[in-house]
Amino acid sequence: MHASGALGVRTIMPHPTVIHNQMLHLWVQCGKNYSINSLKGHLHVIFHCKHEDFVVYLGDVITANNIPIQNASLYWNRAISPTRERGIPWASVFGNHDDMPFEWPMDWFSSTGIPPFRCPMNASYPSESEGGMGCNFKGTTRLELMTNELEMNKLSYSKFGPKDLWPSVSNYVLKLSSTDDPESVIAYMYFLDSGGGSYPEVISNAQAEWFNRTSQEINPNSRVPEIIFWHIPSQAYKTVAPRFYAHRKCIGSMFVEKVASQEAELGMMKLLEVRSSVKAVFVGHNHGLDWCCPYKNLWLCYARHTGYGGYGNWPRGARILEITQQPFSLKSWVHMEDGHVHSEVLLSSTKREE
Amino acid sequence: MHASGALGVRTIMPHPTVIHNQMLHLWVQCGKNYSINSLKGHLHVIFHCKHEDFVVYLGDVITANNIPIQNASLYWNRAISPTRERGIPWASVFGNHDDMPFEWPMDWFSSTGIPPFRCPMNASYPSESEGGMGCNFKGTTRLELMTNELEMNKLSYSKFGPKDLWPSVSNYVLKLSSTDDPESVIAYMYFLDSGGGSYPEVISNAQAEWFNRTSQEINPNSRVPEIIFWHIPSQAYKTVAPRFYAHRKCIGSMFVEKVASQEAELGMMKLLEVRSSVKAVFVGHNHGLDWCCPYKNLWLCYARHTGYGGYGNWPRGARILEITQQPFSLKSWVHMEDGHVHSEVLLSSTKREE
Repeated sequence: MHASGALGVRTIMPHPTVIHNQMLHLWVQCGKNYSINSLKGHLHVIFHCKHEDFVVYLGDVITANNIPIQNASLYWNRAISPTRERGIPWASVFGNHDDMPFEWPMDWFSSTGIPPFRCPMNASYPSESEGGMGCNFKGTTRLELMTNELEMNKLSYSKFGPKDLWPSVSNYVLKLSSTDDPESVIAYMYFLDSGGGSYPEVISNAQAEWFNRTSQEINPNSRVPEIIFWHIPSQAYKTVAPRFYAHRKCIGSMFVEKVASQEAELGMMKLLEVRSSVKAVFVGHNHGLDWCCPYKNLWLCYARHTGYGGYGNWPRGARILEITQQPFSLKSWVHMEDGHVHSEVLLSSTKREE
Repeated sequence: MHASGALGVRTIMPHPTVIHNQMLHLWVQCGKNYSINSLKGHLHVIFHCKHEDFVVYLGDVITANNIPIQNASLYWNRAISPTRERGIPWASVFGNHDDMPFEWPMDWFSSTGIPPFRCPMNASYPSESEGGMGCNFKGTTRLELMTNELEMNKLSYSKFGPKDLWPSVSNYVLKLSSTDDPESVIAYMYFLDSGGGSYPEVISNAQAEWFNRTSQEINPNSRVPEIIFWHIPSQAYKTVAPRFYAHRKCIGSMFVEKVASQEAELGMMKLLEVRSSVKAVFVGHNHGLDWCCPYKNLWLCYARHTGYGGYGNWPRGARILEITQQPFSLKSWVHMEDGHVHSEVLLSSTKREE
């Protein structure tokens, strides 16, 4: 799944029609040993730095919307297996392609007919206990996918998130600490579900309120830097998007698409804009964009299309994020599959060209 | 659920937001005792004629699409209870409001927030065994609704229909015989699912082929009259729809809506048009229409909005269908809730005004 030339890791897709696989992910590079804790403290891992330290799956791990399969969790497991098999921990958020109830295409009802697939049942009449209902292809929900990820994978730091934010799942915060000084906090990493698939493409007002409440509580004076991850760019991305190939304020190598943003802005960006501790937002979604642009007090960044599913055939890469504790720095670049590196940017710079 | 003034039966809707209830149904009136047999012969009922003999639920029994409920079968049961409690047998087809996966409304994500409903779970994280997934509101499918109807109701003559026609459920044929001469057949009644809700609003090519195959097999010489029931009018209804209040060829009392037809015509009407045994098609769907119009060799009829769910507040009624064996006749009229009767039409007339 990784497209790193340095490691030469690349996944051969066994089911390319199902695994979407634009694992626009980030690697948190550490300058020293670090630990990651969930806020509730029941996850705690300490390990030594390696080239790859932590992978963030930025959504659209699979294309499970509108596919007549019984259980997309199997494909999800396959998609994350390269990370798991290398013993690398990860966290994930949902994208717009991960879940959706199946919609029957109109042309399946014409003379060409319904493609050959068979319901997993033998009874003449279906009953729930026989699994007969499976043939209606309700889709595998975010909750089911997340349940599966957490039950099957001890290396996953993903979370369901608060129930009162559902159907928005994968809203959580992770604390990054140095193992040299476990009490100190290097950064808080916020993961949010930007919707899509089974529900509208938005970050809800309730999610914004959750971020506000949580950040006020755990980082009241904005002393600790905060980094934000979700899948679909907010509308602010459109205001900073370079209109030509390059743009002096933006750093990146691909500017070939329009920003496909969330459907509405329901308060999240207003909170981030005024919070000095928020350094950057990272999104996926657009495969043809890989830039970082300054926006008010923070940076708005795309990662880079990493996988071999989904649209677009631009060269694959991954965005790397290197976090240094003292003095705090947040450096990022894009690492291409062929090993070539570009678009380095210092995101923690307080003096940006405005 | 019946709106018959003669019986004075009327259902009080306990959950009007959920029970759609445009039971545009037909009553088969018999001139003598009769029996109804399923084609496979494992259903066989003989009973004496009463004022109400057989009820056909023409779809949209409930509004279960886009309602965040766990199990719409409960509402379905409530909707058919007046028929069941009077010991009247019935058959049903699905309409476009009976099933659909829930779609989250965009405005639930704004500051007004998600309306108060609670997931039926106590665990901090959901698991399938705890029913935690129910909160994603996948909807109750046609197969689940039909399974429930058949398991719960001995008076129901409804059927799933052939599996190879799914997701189109409720495709079946019933044989109407006289108890005086069980070997004879008075008529075949075909029930079809015209889609909508969880899949497109069409009668598929596969359904048309099923009708063709079945009718050729059981009624090869077209000697036995055939009557057809489904929910959404086919496009042919548009071609015969009266353009003004009244129309000399059409018989009815409501002409206040445009025909809302199926999305495509995939072969069914072509088969019916050339088959002399097909006397009439009955549909629901449009609450503001109650006419019968001649179309080629048959009649295209609406029933009449019977229930108190769904749009429109026109006076409620039910279409009655009286079948006489010898000589065969098919007479129909609309019976209003206040007892008033109108729009009588002889559908078996071979000499129609063209």
